Amino acid sequence: MGVMMDRLLDAVVAAQNPSVLGLDTRIEYFPERFAEAYDLTTLDGAAEAIADFNQILIDAVCDIVPAVKVQAAYYEMYGVAGMEAFFDTLDYAKRKGMAVIADVKRNDIGSTATAYSAAYLGRTALSGAEAQAFPADFVTVNPYLGTDGIEPFVRDCATYKKGVFVLVKTSNPSGREIQDLDTGGCTLYERVGDLVAGWGAGLIGSRGYSSVGAVVGATCPEEGAALRKRLPTVCFLLPGYGAQGATAEGLAGCFDEEGLGAVVNASRSLQCAWKRMPGENDFAKATRHVAIAMKRDICTALNEAGRGRWK
Amino acid sequence: MGVMMDRLLDAVVAAQNPSVLGLDTRIEYFPERFAEAYDLTTLDGAAEAIADFNQILIDAVCDIVPAVKVQAAYYEMYGVAGMEAFFDTLDYAKRKGMAVIADVKRNDIGSTATAYSAAYLGRTALSGAEAQAFPADFVTVNPYLGTDGIEPFVRDCATYKKGVFVLVKTSNPSGREIQDLDTGGCTLYERVGDLVAGWGAGLIGSRGYSSVGAVVGATCPEEGAALRKRLPTVCFLLPGYGAQGATAEGLAGCFDEEGLGAVVNASRSLQCAWKRMPGENDFAKATRHVAIAMKRDICTALNEAGRGRWK
Repeated sequence: MGVMMDRLLDAVVAAQNPSVLGLDTRIEYFPERFAEAYDLTTLDGAAEAIADFNQILIDAVCDIVPAVKVQAAYYEMYGVAGMEAFFDTLDYAKRKGMAVIADVKRNDIGSTATAYSAAYLGRTALSGAEAQAFPADFVTVNPYLGTDGIEPFVRDCATYKKGVFVLVKTSNPSGREIQDLDTGGCTLYERVGDLVAGWGAGLIGSRGYSSVGAVVGATCPEEGAALRKRLPTVCFLLPGYGAQGATAEGLAGCFDEEGLGAVVNASRSLQCAWKRMPGENDFAKATRHVAIAMKRDICTALNEAGRGRWK
Repeated sequence: MGVMMDRLLDAVVAAQNPSVLGLDTRIEYFPERFAEAYDLTTLDGAAEAIADFNQILIDAVCDIVPAVKVQAAYYEMYGVAGMEAFFDTLDYAKRKGMAVIADVKRNDIGSTATAYSAAYLGRTALSGAEAQAFPADFVTVNPYLGTDGIEPFVRDCATYKKGVFVLVKTSNPSGREIQDLDTGGCTLYERVGDLVAGWGAGLIGSRGYSSVGAVVGATCPEEGAALRKRLPTVCFLLPGYGAQGATAEGLAGCFDEEGLGAVVNASRSLQCAWKRMPGENDFAKATRHVAIAMKRDICTALNEAGRGRWK
């Protein structure tokens, strides 16, 4: 069977593309022609539009982009209807064969972490039955509560062949207030990175990476390259490409010499591609166009940096 | 108007009770007589039962317990239907006049934290309209991303008279792996506590506490007492009383000399009160009985420790 991280990396190799389509969908991202079919004055109408917009973008790129990352905050803000759009988006991407990352950044004490893990990775125990609450292949989690807040996720990764990405070094400016603190010989994020490597030690797949990955901001290229060396079994999810300012050259160091070990998320630049292509009336085509440009940009930078031989 | 933390502490004083009813509802908590009216083999049926069970417990104690804490994980695990039960529970508690803490432990980079804050504290911007996604007075948040992951919540606390509780020192055993690390002269949790005090500096109410509070595990009494001295403007939310093993004596040090500065959550011991009272057929009465015993236990310990004069 292998582990989930193998499946993700196999999909990356098959598509020759380490990109992830981020769906942080906001109603401001809709072209007018699309928006006018919906009642965007209500939570229900906005949520319906978001789910439909996402499906169109998934259809536009699912044959060339191996994974999708769906940011829960932008669905929770539309209430229960938003959570339905969240479910529908995860479910649709999964049915289209993409690896599905539920970007929920959850965490809590062990018993509660067990409930969160059931919600996204495992199964919810019912009376003489069980069910899947939200269909995801990966979740993102926060490490502040230590091992017993992570273990339930790791257990479900083993049982259900799923994966997690633990926040290690985030892409936002003030992440360093906490994460860069010197904790005696190394920073907090390095220490968390070491814990992540340990948590995944039993789930290393045939490509050398475990199903317990790390979120590493693509906006900190030097730290990312150093973490790549420090954590040879930990695959990175790199947010921040595009709108947040990270470049393909900067993130090449987060990949290993074969060109694996990381996937790169872009949200706004893909979702709002139509804004940069005034002549293109079809926003889905614009997203596909920018997705292809992103793949080329990253693969060229990886080839030039000697990180694999990408087509 | 004052700040949200004033409203919470005013309610505590009025009820002469610093307890919080935790609703970490699980179907195993239902007495058979209650459960048999629902189809607990499906997510929808379980979620419906959870919402009803919560309403009965809220009705049972809303005149004597000033606040409720609803743990999102136990709702997310029932999928979209569970999120509807989450909404209904927050909404019902609010309508019953309780202070409502959405225990979601969310956090992310600034733009995404803005969306989370809109979901729970602020308003969701729609096309020429706005709406409230989930009705809460407080949310719990995680500090790992530093100031810009917290600022959106603090902004909404000011605009909408709301509050947050930031994870500082958690009640679980492995919290110390991260939180107790020496970061050069103080531990990480002390440093996070200092940040929390700073984040709330503009939101201090007439009782001397800001609307930016801290989650401090009641399972670590010595650290709690030291934090009380270190952070005189930060109100604590103390989980861990009862089932997690914290005692009233142990948590007295988390209160100030007037007996304020903290609220104490109990979930399982209140929700499953009927299991400890085999003669009582009415589970709501059992919860009320245990809630009164909890109030007496805490107030007695506070009086004995010279932390206010509680009736």
